[in-house]
Amino acid sequence: MVHISKSRVRDRRREILRAASHVFRVRGFHAAGMRDIANELGIAVGKLYYWFENKQELLAFCQEDCLTALLRMATRTRALNVADSTRLWHLVVGHLRCLNEWTPGSLAHLEVESLVEPHRERIQALRDQYEDRVRAVVSDGVRSGDFRPEVDAKVASLCVLGATNWSVKWFRSGGALPLNKIGDAFADQLVRGLVVDPQTWSPPTDDPFSGDDSDD
Amino acid sequence: MVHISKSRVRDRRREILRAASHVFRVRGFHAAGMRDIANELGIAVGKLYYWFENKQELLAFCQEDCLTALLRMATRTRALNVADSTRLWHLVVGHLRCLNEWTPGSLAHLEVESLVEPHRERIQALRDQYEDRVRAVVSDGVRSGDFRPEVDAKVASLCVLGATNWSVKWFRSGGALPLNKIGDAFADQLVRGLVVDPQTWSPPTDDPFSGDDSDD
Repeated sequence: MVHISKSRVRDRRREILRAASHVFRVRGFHAAGMRDIANELGIAVGKLYYWFENKQELLAFCQEDCLTALLRMATRTRALNVADSTRLWHLVVGHLRCLNEWTPGSLAHLEVESLVEPHRERIQALRDQYEDRVRAVVSDGVRSGDFRPEVDAKVASLCVLGATNWSVKWFRSGGALPLNKIGDAFADQLVRGLVVDPQTWSPPTDDPFSGDDSDD
Repeated sequence: MVHISKSRVRDRRREILRAASHVFRVRGFHAAGMRDIANELGIAVGKLYYWFENKQELLAFCQEDCLTALLRMATRTRALNVADSTRLWHLVVGHLRCLNEWTPGSLAHLEVESLVEPHRERIQALRDQYEDRVRAVVSDGVRSGDFRPEVDAKVASLCVLGATNWSVKWFRSGGALPLNKIGDAFADQLVRGLVVDPQTWSPPTDDPFSGDDSDD
């Protein structure tokens, strides 16, 4: 086998995921076969097996790639010198962009129950880690007095994660609603719903992820 | 065949769905077979085929049953003599209860892409109808001045639907978080995030669906 760099492998795998994603939307994740994905790419199915041993491996790669991007985005958000409410705002926008812009194959991101071992445990750990980060931002905000004292960080973060995750079911790139408009509106609704004083609160105007994609 | 009343058929089908729902959670919707569902019920698989021709029919029944309950709840919500913001509050709480309390098989409710004809078109029409109702409540609230003028009813209702739909992925009956607590917190965050004056706004204290299940 010719030597191929790690990032080249990832890029090619993402390219495949992008094609797979289209097939998933049209046929549904479970009805779509490796042959359908190969057809979409215009390659022989044997070639596809060179990059992914089976659909489970493709599913695991999709979720791991996406969760890695989400965790990196959360780490960068945490490092920002901003109020907790603003941090949650960036997290909502970043989550929507990770899922729908930075990493491909988003629909497969929701197929949590479909993943089997040896992948399931590893991916579930990443998922838990990310959900903890989101919850921590809300808890911090309650402690700092940004958010109302009665806010339950666990419930509020589940509300945030649901609204953002669900976007992969309906968002279409190039559709009538651009992603930045959706991001602003979602973040506004979800953050404003928690802050102590929504009337003096205003959304941030800068973009800390400007020019970003999910790569290092 | 012995005559069985329509409501008796629906009750038995719901009972089956409840068992199926448990199997879906453990094995994943797609990996679960009719045999697994029959095992869970402790009946022969042949008996199960008496009630559902196949898994597609079971999936369609689940979604139709749930959407019918959602639409009935939305109709009752619309008839309430309350402010639009309060109406949205009841809709959020009602949606969570429909999915997680009134109708069984909730996980299958999300399997929108898995449905094929002859069921798909019919169920999609119900789904569209319900989403239109949610959007109308938000539009009405913008028009009446309950919600901020810049609120986009389409985007805000997608945020509401995502947060509430996603609950079937994590909510467990009898778990640490009771459904009424989740409902209050979600409705508070999602509605407060839209209202013009969150500081004077307060959530309703009555329950218009008290003692309700999804039946007429």
